Formats: sequence, structure tokens, C-alpha cells
Amino acid sequence: MTMFLSLTPRAEAWNQFKQYIKAGPNETETVNICNAVNRITAQDIISPVNLPGFARSTKDGYAVPASSTFGASEGLPALLTLVGSIRMGEHTDLSLNPHECAEIATGGMMPEGADSVIMVEMCEAMDDKIIAVADSVAPGENVLSAEEDIPVGSLMLPRGKRLRPVDIAALAATGITEVEVAQGPRVAIISTGDELTDIYEIPRPGQVRDMNAYSLYSGIQAIGGIPKLWGIVKDDCASMQDMIAKAHKESDMVVVSGGSSIGERDFTRNAIQTLGSPGVITHGIAIKPGKPTILAVANEKPIIGLPGHPMSCMIVFNLFVAPAIARWMGGTLYRQTIQARVIRNVASAAGREDYLSVRLFREKGEVWAEPIFSKSAAISGLISSDGVMIVPEHAEGVEKGDWVSVILF
Amino acid sequence: MTMFLSLTPRAEAWNQFKQYIKAGPNETETVNICNAVNRITAQDIISPVNLPGFARSTKDGYAVPASSTFGASEGLPALLTLVGSIRMGEHTDLSLNPHECAEIATGGMMPEGADSVIMVEMCEAMDDKIIAVADSVAPGENVLSAEEDIPVGSLMLPRGKRLRPVDIAALAATGITEVEVAQGPRVAIISTGDELTDIYEIPRPGQVRDMNAYSLYSGIQAIGGIPKLWGIVKDDCASMQDMIAKAHKESDMVVVSGGSSIGERDFTRNAIQTLGSPGVITHGIAIKPGKPTILAVANEKPIIGLPGHPMSCMIVFNLFVAPAIARWMGGTLYRQTIQARVIRNVASAAGREDYLSVRLFREKGEVWAEPIFSKSAAISGLISSDGVMIVPEHAEGVEKGDWVSVILF
Repeated sequence: MTMFLSLTPRAEAWNQFKQYIKAGPNETETVNICNAVNRITAQDIISPVNLPGFARSTKDGYAVPASSTFGASEGLPALLTLVGSIRMGEHTDLSLNPHECAEIATGGMMPEGADSVIMVEMCEAMDDKIIAVADSVAPGENVLSAEEDIPVGSLMLPRGKRLRPVDIAALAATGITEVEVAQGPRVAIISTGDELTDIYEIPRPGQVRDMNAYSLYSGIQAIGGIPKLWGIVKDDCASMQDMIAKAHKESDMVVVSGGSSIGERDFTRNAIQTLGSPGVITHGIAIKPGKPTILAVANEKPIIGLPGHPMSCMIVFNLFVAPAIARWMGGTLYRQTIQARVIRNVASAAGREDYLSVRLFREKGEVWAEPIFSKSAAISGLISSDGVMIVPEHAEGVEKGDWVSVILF
Repeated sequence: MTMFLSLTPRAEAWNQFKQYIKAGPNETETVNICNAVNRITAQDIISPVNLPGFARSTKDGYAVPASSTFGASEGLPALLTLVGSIRMGEHTDLSLNPHECAEIATGGMMPEGADSVIMVEMCEAMDDKIIAVADSVAPGENVLSAEEDIPVGSLMLPRGKRLRPVDIAALAATGITEVEVAQGPRVAIISTGDELTDIYEIPRPGQVRDMNAYSLYSGIQAIGGIPKLWGIVKDDCASMQDMIAKAHKESDMVVVSGGSSIGERDFTRNAIQTLGSPGVITHGIAIKPGKPTILAVANEKPIIGLPGHPMSCMIVFNLFVAPAIARWMGGTLYRQTIQARVIRNVASAAGREDYLSVRLFREKGEVWAEPIFSKSAAISGLISSDGVMIVPEHAEGVEKGDWVSVILF
């Protein structure tokens, strides 16, 4: 019996699916900021201090009461009395009276009585004591006030944000040395297919090693999930139902590779339907490859069925599994997508998104994408590709020189 | 005394500098492929097996001796005797004689005597035993030969390659379960500046916490280096010379933030010059910000002086430190650069590259970059930016709508 899948556009499938994905980890841990890079914040981070914490000069020049410069010009400079000098990093007890000034370096602490800095280029020392100022400054000019960069109590980083090196530096600047980060979801990886052997075994002719489990494992790990290999389940109803039920119980998310095409082998779909509601949300997505993908949810835990072909599996991982993990952790994945120009015409059917593996190269400052056509040489195709280019749903192909989006592997 | 730096274009500076960076790690370690994602290969990886390892069908259909189909057409089909059926994953002992065929599934093992597969759409079963074939196939058609995907002894992954999930899957497919990866370089991080306090201390007014050490630490860690914080050295010649000499001895690479501008504080440069030859390669690069960057090498160990301003420090990290670490590990960094369109005109001086922090957003499928102008509010500028856009050296700015490259933070 041949059944046809009714196909859902990718964006629509994701929008339906994501509503069911519970945003928010159960478990968090506190780590030193030195171990926090690329981790996901588990709560909003609020600044405990004002930054810079003191009014500081943003220029080399003279700290002045702005009012003492009003009306000054090259022809009629204001003459101010120099009462001191302030270096960067130095605490100052200086207090200026009207018509007084202090030499100040960029980053230097503003003295009492001064509200602005006049740049050194506008000034001339008449002698050791008298500075001629050839322009006026407005109050606040060339000064960063004590709370102007980061005010105490302000939101620095929202929950669910991936901590980049710059974010960690910002935490350090406020004296935050530990941060609560999300534990990734426990993701069960189940492989199906009578042709599969464990990678530690020697396959008999006709068999292949279960490679998809390892791209999924590494991919999940790389974005902060906690993968667990559940091994290979034979294509029969009882074994599948048994393993998927256990994996579902012990994990936050389940991915099943292989066995997702309609026909004789949709044990996966049936097994998923026994787990709870709402069950299968989408079976069949308007993408190529990746059409037989299953998106399901049971007891608030996502379950994703991926195609068995290694390239298709990886594409569906990038389109659905990775964003689901990111969402579970309270964030959104900044998908590693770059723009490139395609080196040749590529035909495609309208009404579905096509994904073609490509090599990337740079020429004259532009990135170009070269589609790889490789029969069914699945593995050499994987290692030689930099990613997959997207031929949009409503396009009947792309033309040589067109800009395309490329999802990087 | 004011001195002016003679500025070297960025690409030229990097090309000079990189010649001195020893490609190749001293230390390697062997890890299970489950712990290898994003690690760098320490040697060429050669396939120990042929893949797929057996001739397999790439289509659902009938395995046939191609010669038995020659001349077949819809009007005059070839009549072949069905002698068996082969499922995916099944080992077969079948051996076909001329004018015999066997049913075969995609991925199925080809039987002896068959050299091609005719797609099921071209065939009709006359009865249990006789299949009418309405087209001819060429030898090898719809068959992947035993070594066609990956031949035994072939180079799968070169030394110096970052292991992506797809690469790890390919290793799994060949039965490689452990891989030798490069230990990252030990990178010493030294901070200079009288205004700095350790982040565990409360700064007095006028002081700021040493945040750059932590963006450098996290950034180095994220790309596989082994960072070590050497702390803050006061801006005096003897302390600097002492610390940099020790750090240089105990590390593979040294980065020094702050203290790299020409003028009163070039202790860093002088200290570097005492370490060995060739010493400073470049001091002063035609970029803004980042001009006072120092690139040096002593005893084959790179030493990089970075500006003290947090954003400048991060830009120079991305332009020079990260690629130097990648090169040290035998690879090249795929810099996280995306193309975006700038939302407004940006002026720039020709003759230098400008880097402007930007926020990115998507609109109608395109990525747009919005420059952030933030006085000297260094820290809020860092956390609110997605990266920096590049205004090329020879351009006098870019216009609204122009495509620019953005280095992602």
C-alpha cells in the first residue's frame, strides 16, 4: 500500500511545533564566568552596580565647569586657573571653583565642580597656572556620567541568552564572577533500521554502521544539549514501542533517526502515538530532502523523527532539532547561516524548499556556493560539504549569481 | 613627545605575521568521537575500510545483469525470471544467471551476477515468476559500488580540520571510534593599566575592573586554546618585563591588553623586544579602532598587544588572536562573518578599514545591519551589538543598502 504524505511548509510546521515546546529548563547550575562561554543564561542578569561608577572623561583635555567657558572663542579665550592634573585610574579629591580647571586624561575621574571636558586641542597653556580656552563646552560634554553606561538594577542580559565573550567581559566589568546557566535538555537518540550495526561491530555485507547517531550526538552536544545514545531498535512494533516509551520517560526530548517514511515501516509514528497527547503534530514537510520528518509532542516533551539518509538527517537536525533545543533552554538559536552567490543555475520545484549540499569558496571578497552532486555517495558528500544552500519554497530554482542562504554544518 | 605610528594595512600585517606562526601543536590527545566535536584533528585521517563496503542499490527496483535488458522497450519488454528478493540490511547469497532478476530495495546489497538496477516504475510482474522490463539499463546504473563512496586508504579528513557533527558521523561510518586531536596552545593573558583592578575587588572611584582579560579568556577557550590569566601588571618597565618574560617562557602564545599606544606607555613594546628575535613585526595597523595593535614573535611564539578599549580589544582578538590560534593548531579559522545590508550611510576615511559595532535584524528574508553609536559607553555597546561591520580599506564609507561583511561576536 502506498500512502502519500500531505506536506506542510517548513515555516508553518515549525510554528505549530514550537508552541508545544516548553521554554525553560528544569535544571540550572552556577558556574564561574571562566567556564560560561557559550552557555545559556538561566535567569535575567541585572547589574549590581553603576558603570562606569564615577563620572569620567572621554577625551584628553581639561575638566572645567562648563559655565566658565561660555562665550569663549579664539579671539576672546576664557582664562582658567590650573589647579591639578588627573591621570586615568587615579582617585581625585580635587574640587574646582568657577574659573578653575584640571588637566585630565581619557578615562580619568572627573573632579568635584567640573561638569565637562574641553579637548586639549582647544587649549593653550599661558604659563604654569593659566590655561587659555578658545571654545565653549556644554555641560556634560566629553563626560560619561557615573551610571551612563550601565545603571544599577538595569537588565544586562536576558534569560535564555548564549553567553559570548563580550557578554562575559560585561559581567566581569560589574564584578559578577558567577552566573546561573541552563542545563541543556537530556536528549535521547534512538536509531531504527534493520540494516544498522553498532559502530563498534564489523558490519556484514549488506549492513552499514549507525552513523546518524553520532552526528546527532555531536550536534546536540555542540549546542548545549545532553545527548544519550539509546542504540539501535529493530524495525518491529513491540521493540520500538518499548524503547521509545522508556527513552521518553527518562529524557526531555527524543530523536529517532530512520523509519520515518510512510509505508511498511511507520512503526515510529505508531509508537509515538502511544506516548501521550497531543502526539504527532506534523508528518510530512515540504522540504527536499527531509520530507518524511515527524514532529510530535507528548507530555510537553518533543519527539522528532528524522530521515535515515545521513545528509537528510543532518538537514532536519539543523531545521528542527537544534531550534527545539535552543527554545527548550529559553533562547533562540542564531542559526549559522551565511549569504553566498551560487555558481550555477539550480532547478527546483515550486511549493517546497530544496536543500543542496555545497562547497563554499571566496573570490574577490565574495562567498560563492558550488552545489555538490554526488549520486548516493552519502559519506563523501557529507565531509566535502560546507553546508546546504536553501532554494526557497516559492522559487522554481535559482540562477547563476543569485544570492542564496547557506546553513553551515 | 608625540610619535606617529606608520600604519600597515590589515591584510599585509597578517600575511607578514602568519609566516612566523609555527603551524603544528606540540601536544595531542586521543578522544572518543563522542567527545570530539569542534576539536581539531592532529593528523590526517585515512579510511580503514571501503564504503559502502558492498555494492548497493540506490533505487527500489530489480537487480539485473544489464546485458539482459539491452534492446528492451515498452513495445518489446525483456522478460526476466524473478529468483528472489533482497531487503535493505540483508546479506544475500543469491547469484543471478543471465535473464534472471531479484527484487531489491534502496540500500539493498547487490547479488552476484547483477551489475545494475532497473527502477520499479519500468517493470511489471506478469506472474509470480516473470518480470517484464520495459527499458534497458547501463552496467552500473543505480548501483553504488563497494568503494565508490569512500575507498580504503583514502584521505577522509586532513590534519588541522575542525571536527563538525557530519565529520564525526563519517568517522563512525568507517568504524573509527577514537581520534587524535590537537591540544590548543597555552595562551597567557596579561593586562596592563594603572586604572585596572581585579574583578574580585571593589574598584575605587577612578578605577575599572579588568574586563578585557575575561573576553580574551572566553574567546580563546571557545576556539580551543588553553587560556591562563596572568593578572594585572602595573605600567612600569621592570614589572612588565618580568611578567612577560615568565609568561612567554611558560606559554605558547602571549596576549597583552592595554598599554599598546605609542607615547608614554610603550613599556609593552620595549618588554617584547627583550624576548628574542624577530621581536615586533608590526606596530600600528590601518584599522579603526585597533590602530596601536602590536604583532610580535619571539622564539617562534606569537605575542600580540591589544588596545585597552573593550570593543577595540575584541575586534583585534577576532582579527589576529583567533586566526593565530587556529593556525597554531594547524587549521584555518572559518571566521564567523555574515553578509548584511547596512541601514544607513556610513562615512569613513579611505586608507584604513573601519569596524563599527552593529545590531542585526531580519526583514523580508534579508539581514540588515544597524550601526550602534554609543559615545564611550563601552560596556552597553558590547552587550547590545551582534558584531562589527567592516568598511573596506579603499572605500570612503558605505551607502544605505550596500552589502557589508559583519564579524559576529
